[in-house]
Amino acid sequence: MATQAQVITCKVSLVIEEVEVAPPQAGEVRVKVLFTALCHTDAYTWSGKDPEGLFPCILGHEAAGIVESVGEGVTEVQPGDHVIPCYQAECKECKFCKSGKTNLCGKVRLATGVGVMLNDRQSRFSINGKPIYHFMGTSTFSQYTVVHDVSVAKIDPKAPLDKVCLLGCGVPTGLGAVWNTAKVEPGSIVAVFGLGTVGLAVAEGAKAAGASRIIGIDIDSKKFDRAKSFGVTEFINPKDHEKPIQQVIVDLTDGGVDYSFECIGNVSVMRAALECCHKGWGTSVIVGVAASGQEISTRPFQLVTGRVWKGTAFGGFKSRSQVPWLVDKYMKKEIKVDEYVTHNMTLADINKAFDLMHDGGCLRVVLDMHI
Amino acid sequence: MATQAQVITCKVSLVIEEVEVAPPQAGEVRVKVLFTALCHTDAYTWSGKDPEGLFPCILGHEAAGIVESVGEGVTEVQPGDHVIPCYQAECKECKFCKSGKTNLCGKVRLATGVGVMLNDRQSRFSINGKPIYHFMGTSTFSQYTVVHDVSVAKIDPKAPLDKVCLLGCGVPTGLGAVWNTAKVEPGSIVAVFGLGTVGLAVAEGAKAAGASRIIGIDIDSKKFDRAKSFGVTEFINPKDHEKPIQQVIVDLTDGGVDYSFECIGNVSVMRAALECCHKGWGTSVIVGVAASGQEISTRPFQLVTGRVWKGTAFGGFKSRSQVPWLVDKYMKKEIKVDEYVTHNMTLADINKAFDLMHDGGCLRVVLDMHI
Repeated sequence: MATQAQVITCKVSLVIEEVEVAPPQAGEVRVKVLFTALCHTDAYTWSGKDPEGLFPCILGHEAAGIVESVGEGVTEVQPGDHVIPCYQAECKECKFCKSGKTNLCGKVRLATGVGVMLNDRQSRFSINGKPIYHFMGTSTFSQYTVVHDVSVAKIDPKAPLDKVCLLGCGVPTGLGAVWNTAKVEPGSIVAVFGLGTVGLAVAEGAKAAGASRIIGIDIDSKKFDRAKSFGVTEFINPKDHEKPIQQVIVDLTDGGVDYSFECIGNVSVMRAALECCHKGWGTSVIVGVAASGQEISTRPFQLVTGRVWKGTAFGGFKSRSQVPWLVDKYMKKEIKVDEYVTHNMTLADINKAFDLMHDGGCLRVVLDMHI
Repeated sequence: MATQAQVITCKVSLVIEEVEVAPPQAGEVRVKVLFTALCHTDAYTWSGKDPEGLFPCILGHEAAGIVESVGEGVTEVQPGDHVIPCYQAECKECKFCKSGKTNLCGKVRLATGVGVMLNDRQSRFSINGKPIYHFMGTSTFSQYTVVHDVSVAKIDPKAPLDKVCLLGCGVPTGLGAVWNTAKVEPGSIVAVFGLGTVGLAVAEGAKAAGASRIIGIDIDSKKFDRAKSFGVTEFINPKDHEKPIQQVIVDLTDGGVDYSFECIGNVSVMRAALECCHKGWGTSVIVGVAASGQEISTRPFQLVTGRVWKGTAFGGFKSRSQVPWLVDKYMKKEIKVDEYVTHNMTLADINKAFDLMHDGGCLRVVLDMHI
């Protein structure tokens, strides 16, 4: 492209400003972001409540775009490739990637964790010469971003980017929590706490895995109707009960569920999710991200009597290897994506989009980056 | 035997008294206890600190003996059989036993949990007509006890009962935590918190599973020499370090251990045991029993980044099916038992035996029930 090796000046949210995006260095990829969705992790950091948030930064991590240019040594993508930026990197070479036991990758984490690129420990974003931090190694709320080559998945160019951008975070997180982390078997009873995008993707994954009952729990009863179409078979609103919700669920299920998923990020709900599991084998997976510094707790007897407490990040999917596979499954209509997009806006509307996320009717807002 | 169907009057601890042991009812077995060992769970309940402890009761749950008589319908053991009472029952018929996912059994728990027999919800022990509660469904600190038929394992009559009594609790708990609950693989790095009988059995199990490093942690450095012979390869005394013990272990192991085991029952140590696990896959197993009402806690991020928190009861072994197998392994010298017996006494010395348990040099005290 004509912009290769040039500094690009483009628009970025949240206050839409002109930002300069430096060319990619060795092992880096500059991506023209075409569509980005909003996720609650962006909203949490944006709120300033995350003490580990580094400001000023460019948020955004659920997106799709086209490679604009690549740095030295980048072989797996080239300009023009359609890609999804991946906040979970996959280098295929580190201790984590080679372990066969996790999708986490250690290669660029020390850099992305502090908002910079690995090469020179600097940001590629600046405004009037002042550096702006990266976020989650993706920073997709910009028309152009620079990511590490281990953090970008090349996908089928026929896939609609305004839809498959969702495969950058929420939908895979929910599906993978069921398929990879919990490994739900046919006939299982499943509880899903929180019926947002991630919770609905858990329900969808559980249905595909053959769960016999999928109990959705949410304090907004209006969410139930929509949840049915994602696989939820029963709905409980904790506000309708005097008893603790874990007791309500244990009573309804002859002793508890086989698998539970916390998709909210609330530590009290995480406890309830564990404690509604069946003695002897029930497994609870923490999917939601809690506010910094908060802690989970329970009586150890819960674990000694056979419950298992786990968590998941990006649903246990290996990003570069498996995001393209998820895109293919979507193209073959084996997984839903369109159904999670409730709103389409442009980058200029991003503040309105953040407001919408607090609305029970909203799942994903997809922003067209053409302002 | 001549005592069949008669009330037996015999000696019982802790204050040694004469107790009347009623004949076994349907589905029950009266066992002449020949040897019993002491375990910290007995000591905890004896101390009166367990709010769920029912008094007066007859403690004891790690023992071996001979069937004296059986109640109606008991087919799997008969008078003269050598047996180990099992505080974890195995009925082979309930939802738990049939699940294939747990060694817990639901059949008699509601009765044993409140110190009585299932048949008539009464105790078989009495003193001057006043009932004395059962404990853990075993009550082996009596020369005779009555247990449910689902709570007794028939073993090789050639096995020395003064040794294999240990296969009623501590040794299987440690071995099984490694083999059944954690499923440690060859080459793993393992941390064991607490080098008492259960911790040493964890080390023995880990060595047998091919662990490459077995790190023992205890606040009594005198325990290290003995621990080496059970497989511990490195020793850490938290008192020798300023840093939290989890950080010390993470630093020593390039990111943490693959498996950790808490064998003390201390909720702070349970947290350390989880947090010294390697990101991405480290699994921590709670083996120790915490005091009633105490809680474990951690940041959910520990789980979201791939650590797994589990627990185990009786090491996940199915009691009636697998205790005989463990006895056979001992007879073939494939597992240690003799090495855990540090003291031999008689029932008359039981109070001295409880005192000894607080001594770092003591592992198991075996009491000969012939007073």
